[in-house]
Amino acid sequence: MNVQTQIDTGAEALMASAIRVLSMDAVQAANSGHPGMPMGMADVAAVLYNRFLSVDPTLPNWPDRDRFVLSAGHGSMLIYAINHMLGYADMDMDQVRNFRQHGYRTAGHPEYGHADGIETTTGPLGQGITTAVGMALAERMHNARFGDDLVDHYTYVIAGDGCLMEGISHEAIDMAGHMRLGRMIVLWDDNEITIDGSTALSTSTDQKARFAASGWHVQAVDGHDREAVAKAIEAARADDRPSLIACKTVIGQGAPNKAGSHKVHGAPLGDEEIAATREALSWPHEAFTLPKEVYDAWGAVAARGKSAREAWEARHLGSAQAGAFNRSLAAPDTGALGKAIDAYKAKLSAEAPKVATRKASEMALEVVYDALPNLVGGSADLTGSNLTKTGAMEPMTRDNYGGQYIHYGIREHGMAAAMNGIALHGGFVTYGGTFLVFADYCRPAIRLSALMGLPVTYVFTHDSIGLGEDGPTHQPVEHLASLRAMPNINIVRPADVVETAEAWEIAAGATGTPTLMALSRQGLPCLRTEHTSDNLTAKGAYVLREAEGGRDVTLIATGSEVEIAMKAADLLAEGGVKAAVVSAPCFELFAAQDEAYRAAVLGTAPRVGVEAAVEQSWAPMLGENSAFVGMSSFGASAPAGALYKHFGITAEAVADAAKSLI
Amino acid sequence: MNVQTQIDTGAEALMASAIRVLSMDAVQAANSGHPGMPMGMADVAAVLYNRFLSVDPTLPNWPDRDRFVLSAGHGSMLIYAINHMLGYADMDMDQVRNFRQHGYRTAGHPEYGHADGIETTTGPLGQGITTAVGMALAERMHNARFGDDLVDHYTYVIAGDGCLMEGISHEAIDMAGHMRLGRMIVLWDDNEITIDGSTALSTSTDQKARFAASGWHVQAVDGHDREAVAKAIEAARADDRPSLIACKTVIGQGAPNKAGSHKVHGAPLGDEEIAATREALSWPHEAFTLPKEVYDAWGAVAARGKSAREAWEARHLGSAQAGAFNRSLAAPDTGALGKAIDAYKAKLSAEAPKVATRKASEMALEVVYDALPNLVGGSADLTGSNLTKTGAMEPMTRDNYGGQYIHYGIREHGMAAAMNGIALHGGFVTYGGTFLVFADYCRPAIRLSALMGLPVTYVFTHDSIGLGEDGPTHQPVEHLASLRAMPNINIVRPADVVETAEAWEIAAGATGTPTLMALSRQGLPCLRTEHTSDNLTAKGAYVLREAEGGRDVTLIATGSEVEIAMKAADLLAEGGVKAAVVSAPCFELFAAQDEAYRAAVLGTAPRVGVEAAVEQSWAPMLGENSAFVGMSSFGASAPAGALYKHFGITAEAVADAAKSLI
Repeated sequence: MNVQTQIDTGAEALMASAIRVLSMDAVQAANSGHPGMPMGMADVAAVLYNRFLSVDPTLPNWPDRDRFVLSAGHGSMLIYAINHMLGYADMDMDQVRNFRQHGYRTAGHPEYGHADGIETTTGPLGQGITTAVGMALAERMHNARFGDDLVDHYTYVIAGDGCLMEGISHEAIDMAGHMRLGRMIVLWDDNEITIDGSTALSTSTDQKARFAASGWHVQAVDGHDREAVAKAIEAARADDRPSLIACKTVIGQGAPNKAGSHKVHGAPLGDEEIAATREALSWPHEAFTLPKEVYDAWGAVAARGKSAREAWEARHLGSAQAGAFNRSLAAPDTGALGKAIDAYKAKLSAEAPKVATRKASEMALEVVYDALPNLVGGSADLTGSNLTKTGAMEPMTRDNYGGQYIHYGIREHGMAAAMNGIALHGGFVTYGGTFLVFADYCRPAIRLSALMGLPVTYVFTHDSIGLGEDGPTHQPVEHLASLRAMPNINIVRPADVVETAEAWEIAAGATGTPTLMALSRQGLPCLRTEHTSDNLTAKGAYVLREAEGGRDVTLIATGSEVEIAMKAADLLAEGGVKAAVVSAPCFELFAAQDEAYRAAVLGTAPRVGVEAAVEQSWAPMLGENSAFVGMSSFGASAPAGALYKHFGITAEAVADAAKSLI
Repeated sequence: MNVQTQIDTGAEALMASAIRVLSMDAVQAANSGHPGMPMGMADVAAVLYNRFLSVDPTLPNWPDRDRFVLSAGHGSMLIYAINHMLGYADMDMDQVRNFRQHGYRTAGHPEYGHADGIETTTGPLGQGITTAVGMALAERMHNARFGDDLVDHYTYVIAGDGCLMEGISHEAIDMAGHMRLGRMIVLWDDNEITIDGSTALSTSTDQKARFAASGWHVQAVDGHDREAVAKAIEAARADDRPSLIACKTVIGQGAPNKAGSHKVHGAPLGDEEIAATREALSWPHEAFTLPKEVYDAWGAVAARGKSAREAWEARHLGSAQAGAFNRSLAAPDTGALGKAIDAYKAKLSAEAPKVATRKASEMALEVVYDALPNLVGGSADLTGSNLTKTGAMEPMTRDNYGGQYIHYGIREHGMAAAMNGIALHGGFVTYGGTFLVFADYCRPAIRLSALMGLPVTYVFTHDSIGLGEDGPTHQPVEHLASLRAMPNINIVRPADVVETAEAWEIAAGATGTPTLMALSRQGLPCLRTEHTSDNLTAKGAYVLREAEGGRDVTLIATGSEVEIAMKAADLLAEGGVKAAVVSAPCFELFAAQDEAYRAAVLGTAPRVGVEAAVEQSWAPMLGENSAFVGMSSFGASAPAGALYKHFGITAEAVADAAKSLI
């Protein structure tokens, strides 16, 4: 515990005023932004940083720092103002002055990676609080492995009414309560205002009772009474349950005429009200200039953080676990992983097992887990369907944070956001499973994985009409296309047991890109019976079967449809047509290959694409003289074989399409 | 109130047993499906139908019937068994026997439109309960307009643990409590089992306290004590709050060896256990044969429903409002709508206002609302940004169900599912707004709009980097492509005030297809200054500006980028290059035009596509000799003008791309 107990309340009041003034001035200069939240929560934030939060601006990523998540991301000026005053080197006053301008770090919403001290990208409401669950969980899991000396920090969240109205907040609250994440403390900006007006327009939930129902420690305070806020944070830290502190605040507090109204939520105050606020706060300083006392007060917070960091470094230096700890935070050991996967692939090619790629994923996970012992995974209540649990993994529970397998419950969105939090916290390689169709349920969090470049892995099974009887609500048709449209995510749909192993090598070794695997429910033959140490899946697409003596046609397929393309090539061969088959497990990785390679794989012959999904996203794989065999509607409920026949995704159809092109 | 009070409890027990036996036998025959839920909830369902629920199988869509929603859709055999025994003409025993087989109505999950008496498609968890909120809301809104004589029914929901763990359930519960939807009654199958095992693996929320926190009436009963269930439903009906009845059940009740285990959730019981269950239930009848007493008991329920329907018809016949009531339920009056829009368009073309298309939508809504007085709309707390409220609309509140405008709160997913429920209930033309990027938050419900073919309208504004400073978390880049990938939904991105009016004519007049509008934040010039009565937007794409003397190039753009294409055509003309400009507001409607029209619009000259989004989805609009000017990464935070320049989406870039093709 490294907490400030001797408080100069005058200085703390100045710290809060400085947040208010910088926020209103920056929003005014940008003529865009949200002054209401930073002004309303300035007192709470001043207390939190001044007395509790431990961060070191000179080493922003020190592993045992407290995490601060601004879930109400529209109030971004709060964190920019604070980080400027704390002395983060990349947040000088020029940044604040150019809030929301091109080329500056002070983006409209806080963006991870754009500036130090931003722990996660927020803005889409409810993501911050749920990502924080993942951080707080990672803290406990890391602590279980390395002890209090190396891992002992808090996760603080500022959330607004919007965060708590979003559905994902239910998943967050239930998870945190169930996992008993006592070091997660949520400061709710209870200002009773949303964009449309009073919260009474749209909600009458008793949030305090709601959090209590999920096992949280709950308190309520006047958010402008700094001593009361401090006491509540102290009590929250002492309780072993996650804590909600409902901070009753006035939005835009400090602005004498506009505070308390939704008009101060997302618009500049205007020159007149800004002058009146300066008057009311007794703040004589010009815009973007701060008095020395303010920098001194915030500097003291930074100094406390620095000494905490130095004390931690001394403990780290003396720890027998320092090496293992460092390794857990480093990039995955792709050398060890690659060697293990190569040996495993050799065995697979020799034995050629026919298994569903979801089963192949389970088999590969055993290899990955051996090579990367900091692997933690889970499923949104589909463990036996996604096959995401290796034999050695123990369930992670509130009584055993040392467990490696997380039962996320029926909470796809919460799982995805929590995975982002685990990845942001560091210490683990992480993945989670559900059905591919439910990518829709967690899409906002997948998007943040991609936007932040987090190496999390989505293990999404039952990836087409091939799942059969569950019918169109469960059959992805548009999902591959919709996910391939997203920047910076690798969508990998392996065709067999070997490609699945290669997919796991890509996913588990990634550093700046999430991976989403689309895996079959149904069994698929091993097509890669000749061992190659090369990871062919990493090339995105490759020639699985060449047409001897030159191609008449090239058949290109992914996943479960590669088997169909191979059969079609056989049919064509019977009729004297020479067809090559290209397996294309990852369009994104193929697009990243050089043009010569791509041209050689795709060839100059007519092309037929085959995928049990809509054609959109296939354009780069096909050309002018091409055809596509796939879906153009939702699916149906019937056994898989009947569906493939009904929708015309068969070797015969592929062969016919090929012949019609020649 | 048309409720059964004289109960033959022996017959009711038989009714429940019959549900159990049909469910286990059908799942066994299919070798696929979920027997646990129908067997566990058989007693509750028997009581609900036998004593309370009012439906008439001879007129399944009678408007004042009670609505029954099986939110736990995997238990589909429950509703198929019941509807068979009630005598729905399309649900004979052959259907039950061929559960989950190709060509039968008994799909894996209940599908709206596949069989009578299925009020909504369920399966994706949490959708049913939230759709039911929309139904219950529509009932109250319809009642406010037509009175108790014509509209006076209940909405009953069976929900499982999965439904209540999904985030969307929070949005549902908060909305229903806030709107005080007292005629919504949720029967929670509290069996403490999920797919992975005990609910204790993943949740410790006190659901009863949670619902109470959102203003619900809450009771708990033994779900196998039929008298207790009946009393609870009576109390729920009497209370003016929405009601949760926690029904403690044993999953798979009736199966002597497997009941109570997650193994009975989603797998057949097996021949041996089926025999044991027959024994335990004293059920001597063969599979798919039922004794007369069972049909008699269920037939009595149907007869009670029929007489309720006949009594309603008598009231309807005598009602002065019968005509207006019928009109509210009929397809929208596209004649009146078309005339109003035509006159409005003439005015617009003459005045040529430069407005953002979100503003144009607000203007068009005034016209639509005049023509279709049963229009009800709303926004997920972005009313002033989406501009979704017409001047005359009053807020819908628990004290004024006669209002037309719904403050949905910060609940995009809940809004979309509730809109599905409003559309399914009937009586209203409905729409709802949020930012386009938050389509991700409600995608599972949008998918159900499309799958069910519901004519709801999504008014999604701030549709590109043109929103500016809010940055990449708020800037859609992949969303147009990801939505265009979905079957059966029209994605309309109008270019100006006239196309926006046309988009509203399409959306408000639709019957079997949802519409999603992508609207700009930024102002756009009126491009359609020459009036046409033809709805050119309904053609999907059309030549906005022809190149005199033959085209050198065709520029194709949507929405805010059509202005850029027009400027590019000017630039090209200066250099002597003849460019046509095609405005393409809706790819789906364009694909539905005949080939001659499409060929004429696209022409044979090289083509340049322009859209501030990723290229995916553009393939059908472009050809071999083409280029695309758009986005290939996430956006950034800066003023809109700076972003368009930074990402190279400018008239100059379009002109350069055109020249490089020629």
